[in-house]
Amino acid sequence: MQISNYIQQSFQVNYAYRVFFSDHIFEPTNTQLAAWLREQASPHYRKRLLVVADDGVWQSHPYLQAQVSAYFQAVKEVELAPEIIVIPGGEACKNDEALFFRLVDAIDKYAIDRHSFVIGIGGGSVLDLVGFAAAVSHRGVRHIRIPTTVLSQNDSGVGVKNGINFKGKKNFLGAFAPPAAVFNDAHFLTTLDARDWRAGMVEAVKVALIKDAAFFEWMEGAATALAARDMDAMQKLVFRCAELHMQHIGGGGDPFESGSSRPLDFGHWSAHKLEQLTNFSLRHGEAVSIGIALDSVYANLIGWLDKPSMERILHLLQQMGLPLYHPLLDMQAGATSPVIKGLEEFREHLGGRLTICLLKAIGQGAEINDMDVTLLQQAGDILKQLTVVSQ
Amino acid sequence: MQISNYIQQSFQVNYAYRVFFSDHIFEPTNTQLAAWLREQASPHYRKRLLVVADDGVWQSHPYLQAQVSAYFQAVKEVELAPEIIVIPGGEACKNDEALFFRLVDAIDKYAIDRHSFVIGIGGGSVLDLVGFAAAVSHRGVRHIRIPTTVLSQNDSGVGVKNGINFKGKKNFLGAFAPPAAVFNDAHFLTTLDARDWRAGMVEAVKVALIKDAAFFEWMEGAATALAARDMDAMQKLVFRCAELHMQHIGGGGDPFESGSSRPLDFGHWSAHKLEQLTNFSLRHGEAVSIGIALDSVYANLIGWLDKPSMERILHLLQQMGLPLYHPLLDMQAGATSPVIKGLEEFREHLGGRLTICLLKAIGQGAEINDMDVTLLQQAGDILKQLTVVSQ
Repeated sequence: MQISNYIQQSFQVNYAYRVFFSDHIFEPTNTQLAAWLREQASPHYRKRLLVVADDGVWQSHPYLQAQVSAYFQAVKEVELAPEIIVIPGGEACKNDEALFFRLVDAIDKYAIDRHSFVIGIGGGSVLDLVGFAAAVSHRGVRHIRIPTTVLSQNDSGVGVKNGINFKGKKNFLGAFAPPAAVFNDAHFLTTLDARDWRAGMVEAVKVALIKDAAFFEWMEGAATALAARDMDAMQKLVFRCAELHMQHIGGGGDPFESGSSRPLDFGHWSAHKLEQLTNFSLRHGEAVSIGIALDSVYANLIGWLDKPSMERILHLLQQMGLPLYHPLLDMQAGATSPVIKGLEEFREHLGGRLTICLLKAIGQGAEINDMDVTLLQQAGDILKQLTVVSQ
Repeated sequence: MQISNYIQQSFQVNYAYRVFFSDHIFEPTNTQLAAWLREQASPHYRKRLLVVADDGVWQSHPYLQAQVSAYFQAVKEVELAPEIIVIPGGEACKNDEALFFRLVDAIDKYAIDRHSFVIGIGGGSVLDLVGFAAAVSHRGVRHIRIPTTVLSQNDSGVGVKNGINFKGKKNFLGAFAPPAAVFNDAHFLTTLDARDWRAGMVEAVKVALIKDAAFFEWMEGAATALAARDMDAMQKLVFRCAELHMQHIGGGGDPFESGSSRPLDFGHWSAHKLEQLTNFSLRHGEAVSIGIALDSVYANLIGWLDKPSMERILHLLQQMGLPLYHPLLDMQAGATSPVIKGLEEFREHLGGRLTICLLKAIGQGAEINDMDVTLLQQAGDILKQLTVVSQ
């Protein structure tokens, strides 16, 4: 028998899922989700469902608990677990290790195996937690996402990332685990508060800026309607934004981010620092709006982005009711802003080399490996002046 | 702007890694591991290494701690974390949630990012724990496996599964995460105790029985040498067994086991129950040996496997010093053996339908969806008689 120095292993894993768009998905007459579940049915295996819901959604839609139970019980091909687990939403749920173990416990208790599904209903944080608990149970129970915010319907909920925080480090524990399916229900958006409605739009601005000038122009035209909570305009925004994110993940050749390129993180390096420094009193989307403004002014200062384009970006964000500036961008006691100082921390986080997406033009992002802190401080000062003038 | 009912996502993820064979890999003159690390080096990112070692290995090879540190410090392209983490080996380490969090903590503390590597040195349990901690940190830090037992070098260590136990449920928490590379060092096998040396061979018997009659025949010829701890024969066994496992994972079309077929679990359904009922006082390989014996006799009883083939299987296991029988296979107070009763539990575990691999012939496994408990009890009784006679 012959042996050699090494054996080479190589294989591919295929992933596929659909993101559906509808509204009132749990109305008995809406068959979209039921039809999908029936498609998955097998004569050989009982498919059980465990529903985990965001407490805030339950409160905004008090009829929903009964409706959800009735809806799933009417699908004879699946078996709903006797308990729906209701958990607090928002970033806090990702800080609570006990909540993670509560979900793993429930997956065990209700015999949710790899033929079954965990269904998360809620904002991005709840979906991140639910997806992670499912991903590591039995080495990968499948999960269905029902995102209830603009941000989760057009960005985080349609992608492949799941995770929780660990000792205050955002998403330190997590997994790349594509959902089995995503159901975007526009009706959930009607009860969002004004800040969440607005903040969710920023990821559409972001992805348009780096990939799709026509979408950016469409948003300029629709900005007034979007700010006035026009649902038709919002559904279009959510659809196109989700589509661009999904195309990037599926078509970029690196869905699980083994490389260093993260164009979808445009505007995010300073946003993450702002969120942390404000103890998450800024919404993620608000922080990203400021981050996009900062990096757009910076791109203009280094000669990448022309001034009219920069002004169009700042104007659109303002029309959407989104902030461009925060006092933490100011120099503090003569030293660089703590947000801008965060650049060095971000470089460390990336493993020693910056890779940041900046704009060459509207619809055209490109990577840069260095940013000048003095110029960044100047960009921050420009945003302060603009904001003071416009007030 | 047009929108539709759904967006279809689909993409592939490619995985590749090498399993190397050598001995004394941490001797300064052995360049295999150093060369691999240099291959991975990048001018842009510092690659840090965190080593997690099995206490038992450290005790059997007291020179190793200094040698490992010196070896990695000599590779200028990487940066060894200032601490080597030594943990207890064996199944117990997978039951200890605190140990999991200790590893995650160390990954955080020593800034092990997605350009860096966690290196596990130890038996299968340590590697399962280390691989899982790495897999969920930063949504996937890469890990290198240095398996130190026959079982981990020819089976668990060369595959894609990682995990820990949760509330006594084996591998309840886990992830499919291929290693970045595996380094099999034959020298570690020289210090194994007799039970571990023997028990590790059973996975080679298993995979030969379902896939490769020639390998089975080779083992029949080498059985005396293998039992007498002939290292040349053992290296051949480990290599071919690893190769067959890797071919199955890479070539089977379902590396992350999304389907129901698990031919590599041949002999394992009763083995898992035996391990549990004996509180892991039986080695995994010993339990699998009994499981293979039971399912081989059963296959003969239902007319799948001819009697001479069945006898060859039992004979080879015996020549290797492996057990064929355990008193828990007996009827207890007139009722079916608790091991055999475990079949129903296993069916539940699979989601309601049995899929079990049995032998049609040596080298030819096939699936069956039903097993007769009365015939299984009869198979257990036959093994008892054989064992009593042969003693």
